[in-house]
Amino acid sequence: MNGIAGAVELIEVSPRDGLQNESVPVDTTTKLELIARLLDAGQRRIEVTSFVNPNKVPQMADAEALCERLPHHPDARYAGLVLNQRGYRRARASGRLHEVCLVVCASDSFGQRNQGQTIEQGLAETAAIVRAARADGIASSVTITVAFGCPFEGEIDTARVVGIAQALAEQQPDELVLADTIGVAVPSQVSAVIAAVRERIGNALPMRGHFHNTRNTAIANIVAALQAGVSRFDASVGGVGGCPFAPAATGNVASEDVAYLCQRMGLALSVDLERLNDTARWLGERLGRSLPGMLSRAGGFPPRAAG
Amino acid sequence: MNGIAGAVELIEVSPRDGLQNESVPVDTTTKLELIARLLDAGQRRIEVTSFVNPNKVPQMADAEALCERLPHHPDARYAGLVLNQRGYRRARASGRLHEVCLVVCASDSFGQRNQGQTIEQGLAETAAIVRAARADGIASSVTITVAFGCPFEGEIDTARVVGIAQALAEQQPDELVLADTIGVAVPSQVSAVIAAVRERIGNALPMRGHFHNTRNTAIANIVAALQAGVSRFDASVGGVGGCPFAPAATGNVASEDVAYLCQRMGLALSVDLERLNDTARWLGERLGRSLPGMLSRAGGFPPRAAG
Repeated sequence: MNGIAGAVELIEVSPRDGLQNESVPVDTTTKLELIARLLDAGQRRIEVTSFVNPNKVPQMADAEALCERLPHHPDARYAGLVLNQRGYRRARASGRLHEVCLVVCASDSFGQRNQGQTIEQGLAETAAIVRAARADGIASSVTITVAFGCPFEGEIDTARVVGIAQALAEQQPDELVLADTIGVAVPSQVSAVIAAVRERIGNALPMRGHFHNTRNTAIANIVAALQAGVSRFDASVGGVGGCPFAPAATGNVASEDVAYLCQRMGLALSVDLERLNDTARWLGERLGRSLPGMLSRAGGFPPRAAG
Repeated sequence: MNGIAGAVELIEVSPRDGLQNESVPVDTTTKLELIARLLDAGQRRIEVTSFVNPNKVPQMADAEALCERLPHHPDARYAGLVLNQRGYRRARASGRLHEVCLVVCASDSFGQRNQGQTIEQGLAETAAIVRAARADGIASSVTITVAFGCPFEGEIDTARVVGIAQALAEQQPDELVLADTIGVAVPSQVSAVIAAVRERIGNALPMRGHFHNTRNTAIANIVAALQAGVSRFDASVGGVGGCPFAPAATGNVASEDVAYLCQRMGLALSVDLERLNDTARWLGERLGRSLPGMLSRAGGFPPRAAG
């Protein structure tokens, strides 16, 4: 439809973004089993942990211990979130990460609450880290969070997102991520924001989408992004990972739901849907609750047995 | 985005399609409260019941009793499902229905299991009922079920759907509905099927979409249908109503989720989101379970208090 074709790349964020707000502690061995299962299912780019203050995010306190034990898979590309230069130094010292994920908020209110940074402070921090990572041979992506709406400021002006994207493009990271952190975006908005950013920064910097299914729009937003030429998306197996500001709500779009969409639309995406479904069910059992991803309950189509 | 503009019309199907598979009996008074709440929230076209065999669908055994007590609202348009001429005569005798909903399956296997009819038998039945309804001044819509995939036959050839649509167009009902009864469709398929049907039957017969969110694609499919020029959609408050062939799975797309999408995309749709959310929560309490619709848990955006 409307020029959607080619290959899609998923960035599996369940070990980090998915688990970080889980109230039940998840031990390192379980995280490693999750990562091994994701690799078995065909996921290759995996956000495995974050190097942040363990007092603030206890679930990620085992970052170094996890990195030491990461599977040595020839095609795996492991990523870690860092919010500042101290975190970056820890990530680099782990010696196992292919890329670092950085963050700038599109709203000062959200940025100050979430990571104690204004937009300007965030941009200064990413500039230093992107430069250091480049020198160290580590790839970097920068996510603009709450790019489609903020729980404190409401609507976010597209011009502000475009301005941040331009400042980031000048820093020359390897990827720019537009994030609907609280799941409020709708497809027309996704189209408009991507088009506005592209118009300003051109096509040199690859873009990636991060959508939450909080209001049931994530899959539609991914389709809108695909129509706008974006083909890389964050996703979390089982849809694990909510937003601390909306505890009852669904968060990250489920990897298996995105994979079903893409494969049934004829897009190239080398993941095994049944193994992703198995992993979603396994993770739900480990976390002791039903996860919001839908495909693992419904099954693929056509059913394999029916050909 | 891509030419989506104008007004959207929702057909609220919760009292019939939503409740028909509920295992807990829902009494007539509760159904009437649901209908009154839906009217309060701005829904105007409501599928209130079905005139089918009460032994097969006990939840709809009160069809006549319900119709007698339907609110006398000046703008309400009440619809009832009928599967055969006997059902049509009951619907007409109720004296309260503005339209009747008819069904033809796109798969013989599904049709025979679901209503004991092949495609050919279904078309013969609809021809007779559409003609009778026209003579009686009652509007008629015909739904092509499993138009995007069948649980027994797998993929449904688009040419078959087009053939059925053409046969139906010749019967001149007031509306043609394409239904993804088991929730397997993806947006590229929705675009392709709508375009193929339109190419064959032209623009005279209004089309409507009926999408299930079983595999998380309903909202994306609605956007694809909007892009293809369809602006009428079935929806069920709270997302109530599954498919008997996939009991654990989500069924009908939630009215409030569709309304959020449309209103935030700037489309004209006169419903009150908060009242729909209230109704979804109320219905979940009545049915004693969490309903799959998402907006009633997450809330609208921007929040009203924040302006």
